[in-house]
Amino acid sequence: MVTHKYLLDESEMPRSWYNVQADLKPAIDPALHPGTKQPAGPGDFAPLFPMELIKQEVSRERWIEIPDQIQDIYKLWRPTPLYRAHNLEKALGTPARIFYKYEGVSPAGSHKPNTAVAQAYYNKQEGTKRITTETGAGQWGSALAFACHNMGIECKVYMVSASYKQKPYRKSMMESWGATVVASPSRDTQAGRNVLAANPESPGSLGIAISEAVEDAAKRDDTKYSLGSVLNHVLMHQTVIGQEAIKQMEKANAYPDMVIGCVGGGSSFGGIVFPFVPDKLAGKKIRFIAVEPEACPSLTRGKFAYDFGDTAGMTPLIKMYTLGHTFVPNPIHAGGLRYHGMAPLISQMVKEKLVEARAYHQTKVFEAAVQFARTEGIIPAPEPSHAIRAAIDEALACKKTGEKKNILFLLCGHGHFDMSAYDNYLTGKMVDYAYPEEEVRKAMAAIPAV
Amino acid sequence: MVTHKYLLDESEMPRSWYNVQADLKPAIDPALHPGTKQPAGPGDFAPLFPMELIKQEVSRERWIEIPDQIQDIYKLWRPTPLYRAHNLEKALGTPARIFYKYEGVSPAGSHKPNTAVAQAYYNKQEGTKRITTETGAGQWGSALAFACHNMGIECKVYMVSASYKQKPYRKSMMESWGATVVASPSRDTQAGRNVLAANPESPGSLGIAISEAVEDAAKRDDTKYSLGSVLNHVLMHQTVIGQEAIKQMEKANAYPDMVIGCVGGGSSFGGIVFPFVPDKLAGKKIRFIAVEPEACPSLTRGKFAYDFGDTAGMTPLIKMYTLGHTFVPNPIHAGGLRYHGMAPLISQMVKEKLVEARAYHQTKVFEAAVQFARTEGIIPAPEPSHAIRAAIDEALACKKTGEKKNILFLLCGHGHFDMSAYDNYLTGKMVDYAYPEEEVRKAMAAIPAV
Repeated sequence: MVTHKYLLDESEMPRSWYNVQADLKPAIDPALHPGTKQPAGPGDFAPLFPMELIKQEVSRERWIEIPDQIQDIYKLWRPTPLYRAHNLEKALGTPARIFYKYEGVSPAGSHKPNTAVAQAYYNKQEGTKRITTETGAGQWGSALAFACHNMGIECKVYMVSASYKQKPYRKSMMESWGATVVASPSRDTQAGRNVLAANPESPGSLGIAISEAVEDAAKRDDTKYSLGSVLNHVLMHQTVIGQEAIKQMEKANAYPDMVIGCVGGGSSFGGIVFPFVPDKLAGKKIRFIAVEPEACPSLTRGKFAYDFGDTAGMTPLIKMYTLGHTFVPNPIHAGGLRYHGMAPLISQMVKEKLVEARAYHQTKVFEAAVQFARTEGIIPAPEPSHAIRAAIDEALACKKTGEKKNILFLLCGHGHFDMSAYDNYLTGKMVDYAYPEEEVRKAMAAIPAV
Repeated sequence: MVTHKYLLDESEMPRSWYNVQADLKPAIDPALHPGTKQPAGPGDFAPLFPMELIKQEVSRERWIEIPDQIQDIYKLWRPTPLYRAHNLEKALGTPARIFYKYEGVSPAGSHKPNTAVAQAYYNKQEGTKRITTETGAGQWGSALAFACHNMGIECKVYMVSASYKQKPYRKSMMESWGATVVASPSRDTQAGRNVLAANPESPGSLGIAISEAVEDAAKRDDTKYSLGSVLNHVLMHQTVIGQEAIKQMEKANAYPDMVIGCVGGGSSFGGIVFPFVPDKLAGKKIRFIAVEPEACPSLTRGKFAYDFGDTAGMTPLIKMYTLGHTFVPNPIHAGGLRYHGMAPLISQMVKEKLVEARAYHQTKVFEAAVQFARTEGIIPAPEPSHAIRAAIDEALACKKTGEKKNILFLLCGHGHFDMSAYDNYLTGKMVDYAYPEEEVRKAMAAIPAV
């Protein structure tokens, strides 16, 4: 008889978010105004975000208390379980111990509601009646739809048109939670109408959808905009994950030799890793491994530079690893990892060698996903399957050396809405994309000079 | 600050299944051989089931120990959480307290793996190399696929052709777990070929798929057949649900005034209700409410009689509430409740007035499902949404009377693979089917005389 799960009681939930900016040296470079290229002030962000979130974005306070109302909504799915992957270990024949923290138990099926609920809360506090956002595959849009409904805020989601047509179930999920969803480009904004005028059949893109959501929020006093990753406050809200994991690893009597997570914008990775950072800064031996797709390798092949957060170049400039804001990644199944840049906080840690990065092709990722599903029973989303791939490779390395390392990875979401990707893999139709050398070269050339 | 979840530790998991046959008086009538119409003996079942399951089917032992190997697989998702639906209560403005036990955390997303794992285990013990089964929407097939892979048994699923085409994601899920899935009618069996000869475009039916799975198992020595509901041993394996719920309600300091569940074949309902039966037999005031669809109302409009378990009339005759084995229900979204009969154990309890039954139309059911999703965050499957409807109605009744009743219902699965049904409801396209008086009359006339 073995123990599979390490659970926490609601009374053991973290009371504060951990702000890694308090401990990170050197500090990250400030965001710059896209026009003046001077450090952006609170006033520059005020049309889009409530003041409390703007404060959190630049705060150096180590702990920021989680309000009771947010805690009460977190309790619908938090604390989340931490599992020991006994069956996977056995299948691999590894002496390593593999643990994973599972965020797929949330309403939207991923870690995204951790920040969606917080963002909706602070917007409510400051009188926001309506929030706009963009969504690609729908993971972030559904999290925000859920959070807004809970706070009594209207939610408008601009969903990339191609996904809107291909993934009607995510749209139905957002609508079930009361959100209004339109295919982007839409006729609801000038940005959308401009695109449609040029190409009535445009499949849309995340860049266009951001432009629409931002324009919508900027032109209405009752409306703010919300982002699901990249920004400091977003990553901070996710630190409930790592704080819980620390307590659960203690219950398992195991300190991780390494913590592994996938990276797109970086929010789930920040969530699991940041709470372990003080240990590492204090000299403890622990590795942090960020795993990205070969098709969009910002950390392993990108440039550390100021660049725009969006494709259209409307956002402030942020210092990060980037492939260039005009880079359009190939259509891999891990839609959540198709982002040209990376959270400034994660970028800085890679720069400072606190975090290692590696990249995998998607067929190797799905091989790991299927092995995990067959042994551990959970069908993982394509994004965290990148972390599974790395965890399996590390466990196999231990098999060779005989080391009994403790491997912790984050399973940030389930794959119930990604079964077509599994079908693609199982029928042998999945392709790996060669690294788009030329496209990246062009996109990097378009990174603005600062 | 409120408490949402009542969790158990793995050490608090039930060690045995509870066999309600030990306490139920009068006992249920025996199954009859379909040819001789005499009580069927173990030998009649031996070609299809391993002997241990045949023994469990007729056992009067009150407790049957759960083997360690089954417990270890159960631990991948068990114990499952029990929630207090604070947000739903608030939205309803009811003084009642609403609790729900949630089985959607299992690999397949429902309660089905509780018996799939047990059945695969006993088959493995007796040398079975391969198991066949039928599946409609795919919930049962995916549970068995998962269980067989864990036990190293081949799994062949005959999936109703219409579903095979309409629900490719459930098929991909079964294949991800290593099962072979064919559309039924198939060319792999005589039964399938006969149907295809008559109609090459046949959309299939659960009845046809059962015939194929049974024929396949009967003609191969290495192969057995597995059923996901109706039978006594199947319901017994589900009693881990109710046993956990009893402990969790104790932690919540609340004894249920009523336990509510949906009924198709009856396995999830038996799972949550049976462990509470001894209390009721001992005089404790507790109601058991079985909720079925108006489109397939076996308990509320059926006849208590011996009838076949399958449409084709190949199985033993069992005593149950039935609409007639030839009855084909209208295509409601709750595919798991489209069964003409009902588990003999549940039927007997309805007959003895231990269990109440009621029926709802699907639009009222989805109204409840959406209200639940918006308040509690979990998107429920269409089947348990019948139980949610009844729980809400009971809570609203308490609002009128001011009674602070404790309502417990079973949320036996999530609706992640049912979003098209939500879309159907949210766009106003969902229809309710009038009770098919004439079809039921005809089907009842075809119930065999015994």
